Amino acid sequence: MIDIALLGFGNIGGGTAEVITENRELIEKQLGTALNIKYILDLRDFPESPFGHLVVHRYDVILNDPDVKIVVEMMGGSHPAYEYTKAALLAGKSVVSSNKECVANFGAELLAIAAEKGCRYLFEASVGGGIPVIRPMMVDLAPVHIKSVSAILNGTTNYILTKMANEGLAFADVLADAQKKGYAEANPAADVEGLDAARKIVILAALASGVILNADEISREGITKITDTDMKTAESFGYTIKLIGRFEKAEDGKILCMVSPRFVSKANPLYTVSDVFNGILVDSDMLGEVMFYGKGAGKLPTAGAVVSDILDAASPHRVSTMQWRLANADDIADVESYSCGRVFSFEGNEGDLDEIKRIFNPTSCLVENGKISIITDAMTERSVADALSICSLKLISKFRTL
Amino acid sequence: MIDIALLGFGNIGGGTAEVITENRELIEKQLGTALNIKYILDLRDFPESPFGHLVVHRYDVILNDPDVKIVVEMMGGSHPAYEYTKAALLAGKSVVSSNKECVANFGAELLAIAAEKGCRYLFEASVGGGIPVIRPMMVDLAPVHIKSVSAILNGTTNYILTKMANEGLAFADVLADAQKKGYAEANPAADVEGLDAARKIVILAALASGVILNADEISREGITKITDTDMKTAESFGYTIKLIGRFEKAEDGKILCMVSPRFVSKANPLYTVSDVFNGILVDSDMLGEVMFYGKGAGKLPTAGAVVSDILDAASPHRVSTMQWRLANADDIADVESYSCGRVFSFEGNEGDLDEIKRIFNPTSCLVENGKISIITDAMTERSVADALSICSLKLISKFRTL
Repeated sequence: MIDIALLGFGNIGGGTAEVITENRELIEKQLGTALNIKYILDLRDFPESPFGHLVVHRYDVILNDPDVKIVVEMMGGSHPAYEYTKAALLAGKSVVSSNKECVANFGAELLAIAAEKGCRYLFEASVGGGIPVIRPMMVDLAPVHIKSVSAILNGTTNYILTKMANEGLAFADVLADAQKKGYAEANPAADVEGLDAARKIVILAALASGVILNADEISREGITKITDTDMKTAESFGYTIKLIGRFEKAEDGKILCMVSPRFVSKANPLYTVSDVFNGILVDSDMLGEVMFYGKGAGKLPTAGAVVSDILDAASPHRVSTMQWRLANADDIADVESYSCGRVFSFEGNEGDLDEIKRIFNPTSCLVENGKISIITDAMTERSVADALSICSLKLISKFRTL
Repeated sequence: MIDIALLGFGNIGGGTAEVITENRELIEKQLGTALNIKYILDLRDFPESPFGHLVVHRYDVILNDPDVKIVVEMMGGSHPAYEYTKAALLAGKSVVSSNKECVANFGAELLAIAAEKGCRYLFEASVGGGIPVIRPMMVDLAPVHIKSVSAILNGTTNYILTKMANEGLAFADVLADAQKKGYAEANPAADVEGLDAARKIVILAALASGVILNADEISREGITKITDTDMKTAESFGYTIKLIGRFEKAEDGKILCMVSPRFVSKANPLYTVSDVFNGILVDSDMLGEVMFYGKGAGKLPTAGAVVSDILDAASPHRVSTMQWRLANADDIADVESYSCGRVFSFEGNEGDLDEIKRIFNPTSCLVENGKISIITDAMTERSVADALSICSLKLISKFRTL
């Protein structure tokens, strides 16, 4: 029997107990022995729950119990999740986490401790919910060089953008509806301003490069300024707008990591990733593009990913080898030099097209209702700023393409 | 240093040598030691190749060399691939294979030998080329019950169907073009008649159920009879036609496995899997739908998958646990009871709609150019036969939906 402890008995914690109970037989077959939840740490009591008798309120009960081999951290936030994780790893217990904030902020140190102590720190559920992506990137993509990652990583914003696209609604209206339905938090800032996606792309970038950036410091733009007109423009061009986390390795080996809304073309496999689904498109030197797709959130999908990590951690023969290094200034690519296709909309008419064409050399143009929209080939941020500074027309909106 | 031997120095064998050479530094870092190709078995000599000096013509040189820990079988076909694989495993050497025919035909026995001898039999490259799918299904989906798999598994047929859809061309014309471009074999039967896809879905079904069916015996229909008119009908309904390998577990636990062309709706993530790409959509009790997407064939993607298996096999701490059982008659679901949505086209006009509606109760109808096309809710094969037997109109074509 393998004893584990769950830290946090909220949505994901409850789901994890449910998966372990519902699929007990299958899990025991895979593991060759039973998986037993010995403790659940939570501030609250759950007298009505069938797991209520497992609840403890003090972490040292878990930490000091040598029978507990695996601690499952589903508390969220940085503290005390970080301190609890560190203490468990230092005690030689493996830790499974669904907590992207803790992984993004402290992953490098926690992975180093796990390696030193011969235990594991696993976090499949921290990115992409139920989608297998962390382990495939670590194991299946081990022999290839990852060149870029483009990913839809936040279900709430993707739901909002899908609704805007399908129903022609404005951002604020869809957000209010999503909040009413429980798809968006009362305070949606971390989602709609892209911080949640930033933490996740920083984790994926670390998997790809071995270097972890500070999620708070990467170039980040949310979806709050996207209008229904922008969405209609995208549709007219055969695109849609998605919030994209993007990692790429520049030619000089430096790392670029950003979150921003982008025009995504119909030819891109991320185009059809709709509603609360997530998609992670990884480009590498040998495999070309591979994509992982599925439910990026939700109780059971996320809990399923947690339990697959528990099985992995419970396998006695695995060791931790992955190491991350904190990024320093030399690792980070200059965002000003970042080059990609662009979309601009200006106030203007047919008569203004000559100026636009001269300055931007667009590949597509659309003129309607006093508005000129264009798509360009790759331009750097710097050349965008230069071009806009000499253009006499009033800019309405600008986007990157993917 | 870990010594390996490559069996077969064709397209995939050459690609594998290339990946190991090009990414030597990365592989050594992952492995903690160098990966060395000691022998290449082939009937031919390759005096011009930088690997030419490694070529041997007798397998016993490899088999009797105790330094060779991993044998990489990329010969294709059943024989002597099966005999060579079995001999290697019996000698305690792990085997990595890209050979779907050998895995589908002899996987159960070979996995049993690997488990008995404490070595590994791995075949990530046998399905979906460079797409990580076998290992994610084994490891990440270990704690969940897989309910169904729907997959585009053959790049050649998907290329042909994409061309037919995009350019309105007939099957024979596109096939001729694909053969000219090297996307289709001179003898394309295994692809266009669905045998290649059948072998792959049988392997995925075994991963999902632990039971392996005979690929030659599953219900199978290729793409040779699909007309440009069928494709236009699909488009009119907002669908496209794809060759789909389908596994599902019936309610009584029996296994259903089939390959057939299907109408795939725009809402399905497989809809946008175009050209030579593959997509594997897996539905499970906890994770919901996850999809794996990428290049299902090609020298470097397939070789990349082979090398990820070599790294896995070279990891000293892993053991083989997966076991397959050969299917017996009781395992196999009755195809006659298989239920899914249907598409029918009949010769007929507006005046015939009443009869059609009475018999088939369709959800959508399309009448044009003397042809009535309908989409229905789920019907069993048996009820399809019954309905067609009482319908007075001449059937032009029928398809399943997904």
